[in-house]
Amino acid sequence: MKIVALAGGVGGAKLAHGLAQNLPPEDLTVIVNTGDDFEHLGLTICPDLDTVCYTLGGLANPETGWGRVNESWNTIGNIEKLGGPGWFRLGDQDLATHLERTRRLKEGQSLSEITRDFCNAWGIKQMVYPMSDSRVRTMVDTDEGELAFQEYFVHRHCEPRVKGFRFDGVEAARPVTGAREALESADAVVICPSNPWVSVDPILKVIQKINRPVVAVSPIIGGKTVKGPAAKMYTELGIEPSALAVARHYRSFLSGFVLDNVDSDLSAKIEARTLVTHTLMNSNADRARLAMDVLHFIGSL
Amino acid sequence: MKIVALAGGVGGAKLAHGLAQNLPPEDLTVIVNTGDDFEHLGLTICPDLDTVCYTLGGLANPETGWGRVNESWNTIGNIEKLGGPGWFRLGDQDLATHLERTRRLKEGQSLSEITRDFCNAWGIKQMVYPMSDSRVRTMVDTDEGELAFQEYFVHRHCEPRVKGFRFDGVEAARPVTGAREALESADAVVICPSNPWVSVDPILKVIQKINRPVVAVSPIIGGKTVKGPAAKMYTELGIEPSALAVARHYRSFLSGFVLDNVDSDLSAKIEARTLVTHTLMNSNADRARLAMDVLHFIGSL
Repeated sequence: MKIVALAGGVGGAKLAHGLAQNLPPEDLTVIVNTGDDFEHLGLTICPDLDTVCYTLGGLANPETGWGRVNESWNTIGNIEKLGGPGWFRLGDQDLATHLERTRRLKEGQSLSEITRDFCNAWGIKQMVYPMSDSRVRTMVDTDEGELAFQEYFVHRHCEPRVKGFRFDGVEAARPVTGAREALESADAVVICPSNPWVSVDPILKVIQKINRPVVAVSPIIGGKTVKGPAAKMYTELGIEPSALAVARHYRSFLSGFVLDNVDSDLSAKIEARTLVTHTLMNSNADRARLAMDVLHFIGSL
Repeated sequence: MKIVALAGGVGGAKLAHGLAQNLPPEDLTVIVNTGDDFEHLGLTICPDLDTVCYTLGGLANPETGWGRVNESWNTIGNIEKLGGPGWFRLGDQDLATHLERTRRLKEGQSLSEITRDFCNAWGIKQMVYPMSDSRVRTMVDTDEGELAFQEYFVHRHCEPRVKGFRFDGVEAARPVTGAREALESADAVVICPSNPWVSVDPILKVIQKINRPVVAVSPIIGGKTVKGPAAKMYTELGIEPSALAVARHYRSFLSGFVLDNVDSDLSAKIEARTLVTHTLMNSNADRARLAMDVLHFIGSL
């Protein structure tokens, strides 16, 4: 079964890793949000892309959900001693990714080529693509004005009240060739349990139209998000956060929807085939089992 | 006694540190070569400036003569794993200096302001100035064509045969105000035992004219350099490397010259007052004692 997974950061990376444990590498393609990418300290940083790659490569920090395992912090600590910005925590190993990526981008290599090379270096056999080689930047409209995503997310800890989103550059952005081909030949597209507003919507806007069956996994469990501001965003936009709200978000193209056991009562209200299962991924085994459930569900559609 | 020291990297940093141990901080100003500065991995790297500051701040690696003590190498190791350039060894702590300096330069701060801030952060009370806030780049003319200095020095290990030097941008470069004022009010200018061709000449070309007594310390001892390619450069330029050759290099403005005991026989040939003493600086005590000798020598002129 050939699968294309659409993923943001942590939750998306976990399910992608689960799928990787259940599929031959050539049958899994992951298309990753780059709307959260930003420039910091002169470096181009791609948080979701790195989280997905670090997770697939077994390099991710399981405690934080971002950055690398066995990380050291000597550079950022010294930047802070010099009075520089320390709010975005760049580990020493992680910094190598950003420095080398930025160097190659300046040399004219595309983000997808660079990602391919990095995956090779990290022993990742699945195809991982940024949603586009063009620059797209998620801007968060808040009660304090429009903020760049990382400014809102990391620097301001998601405190400003959300009023809407804008994906700067999205009109001109197209998926790279390999990603488009994978989308055309996939048996199904899996929307990972990532933030619908800021992780998945940018990818969907770049892809524009999906001609294959789409199954989404709810990132909201019992009205809450495992990590990140998705539930807070729903509330601030006047929508009660729930798996139902997520299913409605994707309703126009959804073939199947996966929600947690705790939300089983919502299943009947969802206008798509549903799978009710345990969706929390606390361990590697959880990831593999949820992915297996999702694949069986796709097979049954 | 108010002293201005002109310094390149290792040897210059050591004598500057010796002078710092013998003078009240407000009486020592160090003007540092920036002709070796270069752009690498998108960062502006100032090797001599950093060596001088790390040495004065007690942060230098005493083993290597460059970089920081108790350094870790996680970033550069990972850059190499990604196929990136590892030939210029950037330690994790050291990298903070380059990242934060580059960030500030891009914000429009001058190199001298940044250096002042960094010195404050590192507890350095002496005034340390780059020779200019303008960009000057030492280019080495070799039998393999013209090479940027770090390309010649680090990447090519000084192997190509030297034919001459060019200091790109030097015509437009001026000393910063504080450095100029220190030069005007100094009791003497000390040329540290740095490479005359590539560490001291660029500073002298920027300063243009020194109106105060100048004392130089030979970087060549017994026909050899303690570190670096100065002796090799003299030979390739058709001049026998010796303390005498260094004294002749500076002859037009030299008040006094300091050479090593092993070169005492050259003393009579030098057209300036000389001090023959132990000039090798293997320990902190060596630095302080040589500096004391130099200061007494200046007092006697």
